[in-house]
Amino acid sequence: MTLINETHDPARKSWVSSANGDMQFPIQNLPFAIFREAGSQSSWRGGVAIGEQILDMAKVAKLTLFSGDAQTAAQAAAEASLNTLMGLGEKANSALRLALSQALTQGSEHQAALEGCLLPQNSAEYGMPCHVTDYTDFYSSIHHATAVGSLFRPDNPLLPNYKWVPIGYHGRSSSIGVSGQAFPRPVGQTKKPDASVPDFGPCQRLDYELEMGVFIGQGTQLGQRIDISKAEQHIFGMCILNDWSARDIQAWEYQPLGPFLAKNFASTISPWVITTQALAPFRHKFTRPETDPQPLAYLSSEQNSQSGNLDIELSCFIQTESMRQAKHTPQRLSESNFKHAYWTPAQLVTHHSVNGCPMTPGDLLGSGTQSGPEAEEAGSLLELTQGGKKSLTLDNGETRTFLQDGDAIIMRAQCRLDGAATIGFGEVVGTILPALV
Amino acid sequence: MTLINETHDPARKSWVSSANGDMQFPIQNLPFAIFREAGSQSSWRGGVAIGEQILDMAKVAKLTLFSGDAQTAAQAAAEASLNTLMGLGEKANSALRLALSQALTQGSEHQAALEGCLLPQNSAEYGMPCHVTDYTDFYSSIHHATAVGSLFRPDNPLLPNYKWVPIGYHGRSSSIGVSGQAFPRPVGQTKKPDASVPDFGPCQRLDYELEMGVFIGQGTQLGQRIDISKAEQHIFGMCILNDWSARDIQAWEYQPLGPFLAKNFASTISPWVITTQALAPFRHKFTRPETDPQPLAYLSSEQNSQSGNLDIELSCFIQTESMRQAKHTPQRLSESNFKHAYWTPAQLVTHHSVNGCPMTPGDLLGSGTQSGPEAEEAGSLLELTQGGKKSLTLDNGETRTFLQDGDAIIMRAQCRLDGAATIGFGEVVGTILPALV
Repeated sequence: MTLINETHDPARKSWVSSANGDMQFPIQNLPFAIFREAGSQSSWRGGVAIGEQILDMAKVAKLTLFSGDAQTAAQAAAEASLNTLMGLGEKANSALRLALSQALTQGSEHQAALEGCLLPQNSAEYGMPCHVTDYTDFYSSIHHATAVGSLFRPDNPLLPNYKWVPIGYHGRSSSIGVSGQAFPRPVGQTKKPDASVPDFGPCQRLDYELEMGVFIGQGTQLGQRIDISKAEQHIFGMCILNDWSARDIQAWEYQPLGPFLAKNFASTISPWVITTQALAPFRHKFTRPETDPQPLAYLSSEQNSQSGNLDIELSCFIQTESMRQAKHTPQRLSESNFKHAYWTPAQLVTHHSVNGCPMTPGDLLGSGTQSGPEAEEAGSLLELTQGGKKSLTLDNGETRTFLQDGDAIIMRAQCRLDGAATIGFGEVVGTILPALV
Repeated sequence: MTLINETHDPARKSWVSSANGDMQFPIQNLPFAIFREAGSQSSWRGGVAIGEQILDMAKVAKLTLFSGDAQTAAQAAAEASLNTLMGLGEKANSALRLALSQALTQGSEHQAALEGCLLPQNSAEYGMPCHVTDYTDFYSSIHHATAVGSLFRPDNPLLPNYKWVPIGYHGRSSSIGVSGQAFPRPVGQTKKPDASVPDFGPCQRLDYELEMGVFIGQGTQLGQRIDISKAEQHIFGMCILNDWSARDIQAWEYQPLGPFLAKNFASTISPWVITTQALAPFRHKFTRPETDPQPLAYLSSEQNSQSGNLDIELSCFIQTESMRQAKHTPQRLSESNFKHAYWTPAQLVTHHSVNGCPMTPGDLLGSGTQSGPEAEEAGSLLELTQGGKKSLTLDNGETRTFLQDGDAIIMRAQCRLDGAATIGFGEVVGTILPALV
């Protein structure tokens, strides 16, 4: 369990002035991304967000300002992907966080040296934060599972295993892209309920899913189980994840082996990875309804039941092609919160490894769509439009049941609690291109 | 489409005498593996099987005997994984095959140089042939789908989408190991039909699945579709795949998103990758029953319907701990043939990419369990024992419904047709260890 320490002190200020009062990247956050100068052919390397700047870890590592674990981690953060850093584990990552926090604090002896390591975020472009070694998507919002289940199986919305098993399935890593990803509308097979023969063509029910992504840090070997009490030590950090979904393709293909082409055409993640350490002040207690079973022993720990969830505010916006042309800002579709998740990140990790499945630094676990308990807190259009039956009217008069070509979906996440500095995840943007014929 | 050429000539003999008449690795085969001297710390590198020898491609590449594409491919084959070689595509791989075939033929000018590049197979150990970038498992045997469906869903064994959609789902790459893999029996949640609460403990219904694995060669970008007429150009080659399955875990977890922990604890592949070129003489025409629908246009081509399947004989053996101690050879459980597959490798590749999902050199596609039309041709114990209801009695008097600790499963594959040299896939062996408590 990560403890609150000086790096979380809300009174701490940075000599990077834009960090002070920043609602995304104050000195209490210190997330990692892979970046380079926008439009350049310079090398990808790791960076740390501080206010409106990026601290270039390739430059920092060369200065050898730190020692021991912190310097080892700084060198790993200088690489072109974060997999090595992720694999160093909690101790080294905590050491680097402390070293960076101190070095970026007002009055640090390292200010002069580090001033030469800054690049404005608006001059940068982002790469994938790591090579995603394996991608698994869970289904941890009971509100989403119930709402979607009622559309696919009206008689049987929430299956009997849901309250016992953290349901998950494997996804595709090759189609995961970083914010800014644009992809053609998928084509595929669909079948109308009353048709005898399937159709083939562009997806007509293209949707987003508002999720959190969990990056695995220290890995395990085949046959090794991760105890629930140690699961968070294997989580490097989190991002925002848009798990795009083709609902009409999904309905026809998903039985008996689950979603496949309905999901693997694209998934988009935010560039900044917010570390487990940074999220420590935002732990949340989720209480299962009294009538629900308690988790089996392997999924239970005192710490997990007391503070295993995270209070992360989520929001989802649309910007259509017309809105972009008229220079309208994105319009909010819904707000939700990760604290409602029925299964915690630690439970997802422990469940995933309980059979001995090896975890690898850079594995990405999707939380599943994070819909809240209220209908307007839904994390997908499928839910907001009741399966496409009730269209949404946007402020500019356009209507949507599902996504149109040119639509961009923007997701944001932020942690705000009294007594803690507000930190943000930045955002993830993805855009639908016309189908390729 | 790969044409039959001089490399397939059954009369061709090699100066490596053990290759002549070899039923696995004659000069007409020339498969690739990653190997090193057994028990050594020497570097992993690519090798080509020829009779009972391995041609060390790291040594071959250094000799620069070849030129152009063939030399480029030889250098790629010298690496510690075959991903680069796979990604070079059909033209370079065909050029290397021709160059190797000529250089290994009796009378070749290169004999003296290449004699120094041989290592006996019984002095070698094998690594994973490549980094498996993404793993997808299909369900291409209609006989398996029907038999398993009748156990999980007696009222509805073959779902309505089966004859239209090449059903597949994503698997886990981190737990794929090469022949020789031993892994602990998985533990997990199961639930008896009449119980109100699930159990937790070691899997009681551990099974194998007899599959073929298809390695993707040349990859594609996000949004790029692979036309059915070009799909085989994207297949580097094939291996044997044992997709171990925990049937009791699967039954409780698989709805609604498909199998997960029931599959991802281990999957074992044979070390040798048999190239698409080597398989050219064994093309087979599969005729759908007249009452079945024809595949949709994107899954149809003249070549695919005429010769898109492959005639590959498959067999599966068990060697229990008692058999090993008594030095009994493995006992055959079943025989089948890949030619019965309802969907061809080309159809699997085209379907996988139809929505724009990027393919990557080193992606592994499992064929799904290859059960034949007869009950005794089943590729899993689930089928052979009718869901565990009818136990098998082995020659030594032991009985099995599902696998016991210490059991090894051995799978073999071979191509034999009049007018062609017989070629083999070698074998894949995997062994069950006791569950970790």
